[in-house]
Amino acid sequence: MSEVRSRVESLRCKECGESYPLEARFVCERCFGPLEVAYDLSGLDPAETRRKIQAGPQSIWRYADFLPFARPPQTALPAGMTPLLRADRLAERLGLREVWVKNDAANPTHSFKDRVVNVAVAKARELGYEVVACASTGNLANSVAAHAAAAGLESYVFVPADLEEQKILATGVYGTNLVAVRGSYDDVNRLCTELSADHEWAFVNVNVRPYYAEGSKTLGYEIAEQLGWELPDRIVVPIASGSLFTKIARGLEEWLEVGLVKGDFPAFNGAQAEGCSPVADAHAENKSVVRPVRPDTIAKSLAIGDPADGPYALDLARRTGGGIDAVTDDEIRDGIRLLAETTGIFTETAGGVTTAALRKLAECGEIDPSERTVLVITGEGLKTLDAVRGSFETHEIEPTATSFAAEFEGEPALA
Amino acid sequence: MSEVRSRVESLRCKECGESYPLEARFVCERCFGPLEVAYDLSGLDPAETRRKIQAGPQSIWRYADFLPFARPPQTALPAGMTPLLRADRLAERLGLREVWVKNDAANPTHSFKDRVVNVAVAKARELGYEVVACASTGNLANSVAAHAAAAGLESYVFVPADLEEQKILATGVYGTNLVAVRGSYDDVNRLCTELSADHEWAFVNVNVRPYYAEGSKTLGYEIAEQLGWELPDRIVVPIASGSLFTKIARGLEEWLEVGLVKGDFPAFNGAQAEGCSPVADAHAENKSVVRPVRPDTIAKSLAIGDPADGPYALDLARRTGGGIDAVTDDEIRDGIRLLAETTGIFTETAGGVTTAALRKLAECGEIDPSERTVLVITGEGLKTLDAVRGSFETHEIEPTATSFAAEFEGEPALA
Repeated sequence: MSEVRSRVESLRCKECGESYPLEARFVCERCFGPLEVAYDLSGLDPAETRRKIQAGPQSIWRYADFLPFARPPQTALPAGMTPLLRADRLAERLGLREVWVKNDAANPTHSFKDRVVNVAVAKARELGYEVVACASTGNLANSVAAHAAAAGLESYVFVPADLEEQKILATGVYGTNLVAVRGSYDDVNRLCTELSADHEWAFVNVNVRPYYAEGSKTLGYEIAEQLGWELPDRIVVPIASGSLFTKIARGLEEWLEVGLVKGDFPAFNGAQAEGCSPVADAHAENKSVVRPVRPDTIAKSLAIGDPADGPYALDLARRTGGGIDAVTDDEIRDGIRLLAETTGIFTETAGGVTTAALRKLAECGEIDPSERTVLVITGEGLKTLDAVRGSFETHEIEPTATSFAAEFEGEPALA
Repeated sequence: MSEVRSRVESLRCKECGESYPLEARFVCERCFGPLEVAYDLSGLDPAETRRKIQAGPQSIWRYADFLPFARPPQTALPAGMTPLLRADRLAERLGLREVWVKNDAANPTHSFKDRVVNVAVAKARELGYEVVACASTGNLANSVAAHAAAAGLESYVFVPADLEEQKILATGVYGTNLVAVRGSYDDVNRLCTELSADHEWAFVNVNVRPYYAEGSKTLGYEIAEQLGWELPDRIVVPIASGSLFTKIARGLEEWLEVGLVKGDFPAFNGAQAEGCSPVADAHAENKSVVRPVRPDTIAKSLAIGDPADGPYALDLARRTGGGIDAVTDDEIRDGIRLLAETTGIFTETAGGVTTAALRKLAECGEIDPSERTVLVITGEGLKTLDAVRGSFETHEIEPTATSFAAEFEGEPALA
């Protein structure tokens, strides 16, 4: 067996470039900038890398050369390789030629968070932690509790106390320590940052965040691979912290660098809810900093009022010719219905946000009809049922053909 | 391009062997036995078939040679190729060596029903139907509404009026005609059989049932392929109508016939809820006919009191050295927790039934510890949240480290 050369070099400050060892740390001691994982991708042969990926597992671990491990870890609940579906009926409704839906609700706990948690929990184990923890708006809570259970680690999961009951129940069932914090997500996040200083725990989105965030790159890799090793023209992505948005782009940049894909870089369009749109507001006002807001939207999984990667998201949207839009709660509900009725995919409010943003872009002529657009659906409708309650009619009848006929009399579909 | 030879011969009566053309029909005119699809698998080369499967799509359509189509249809929402995960922590808890979980909650609408509906809706289109319909205990409702939406067909979905709200909402969102029938599933099924005579609709589990049922074979194919083209020693499957149970076996029998797998046939263990256990009761009483019951269980997706394939299920369990067990509602709830805590997979009540049945088999020594057992998980926990409500503690705190410390004082995991 040939020696595996690790392509992971160090942690590196995104602002000043200072390097740090590959430990559980997340902030630059010199400039307080965020740390991220630095790789040496030089000498990677594109044809060989492609073959290796195609021969790999049906999970994010097929992209192990681009993840922060010297050798791929064994994980009990692998994430990723979710479907990319061509959505012709949706495209037709929007007057577009080619729309693809990347359905990340197909992940183990039905959101894209399984990608980042799969990486973070594997790293936590490698670093010797016995407890994992997180601050979450819900999907991350489900995912951390599940992956910790599968790995046999103890977990502490911190959520805002007003979270959807679906997400509470789908977290507690895994036997985690579930902590409901009376406050906003930003309060929960501050508390976890404080606690991470005093506890020998791996807080997946605090002290191991640099590794965790790398998991999001795999969403970009899958889109390119599933399009036949091609780049789309445009990608529409929800923005909460802005990490997913920017990491999908990072993944595609790496693949361009290695030569796994060629051509023009896609336009990146971010989507937020009007009730929590600090990044969309800064974009509209042409600013490069983001003013924190107090969230008030049905899209709770996007309700981060003080988004850590907001400035990077703004930069990405601008330099790729994309943008960042905000949609109302009613538009979100309509977006959920539109996606369901045209694709058979039932998404949570965050997916309603991206679908509504795509519709807005199509309707205002922002998208050239000849473009190939990818709509990123990050989560599952079963987790935010309140958003569809009362949005359709149920016909209640007796168990007889007469009762059925009386209820549906005059319906055109009846023979 | 070489001519594709269709291996689909006819519909054939399971009882008397009478043949019928490949139309929308389901019952033998001579003996009233159920019809099923007959294939000619002779001359299929195992090595070539295996290569073809491996080069196929990541969905049930990789097994097109064993599905009732002359050529594989294009479908907008492909089902299948769900994960088969080795569950070492579950095995350890049960004192077994090797347990695998086949997680069919990873399907598009999060149950195994997407397999049968994917096939049925494709067949309905091929036969020229513009409306699809079904009688459902919930999961089928979700799936028919979704696949009809994706295919651009109108749909009518009939469910018992007392269904879990999660399953109602996750059906109505697709824009189906949702009919809530005041009665049991068996009443709903009778009504649909009656309506199918008067309407030019494809009732997926009535008049196109012979095609529909074929979709379940793919669950068996995937288990064998994912085990490296090997058969497990034992498979634990929930029983509602008995169709899934018997069709998984049929799929494996076909593969043995073709030579795609070799070795001993697995023991088949069926699992029912005590509140609806007509097949388990008949098994315990050593009978070959099933006496209908009135269901009363939290496992509503298994609440079929008059199971059509009951006698075939009994025969399968007996001739493979398996069995059919029933578990209580409390054991179902415990089964859901056990699976979640050891694998990170959150299943609905039906999966609680199979997990509880597996535990029972392990505890009474029915399973040799050296066996390789596959546990079939057919659906998603987010659809039956009532079953876990109140089963765990939530710690509510203020957003301060002091409040956290006060709540968790003395916890051993705290550093």
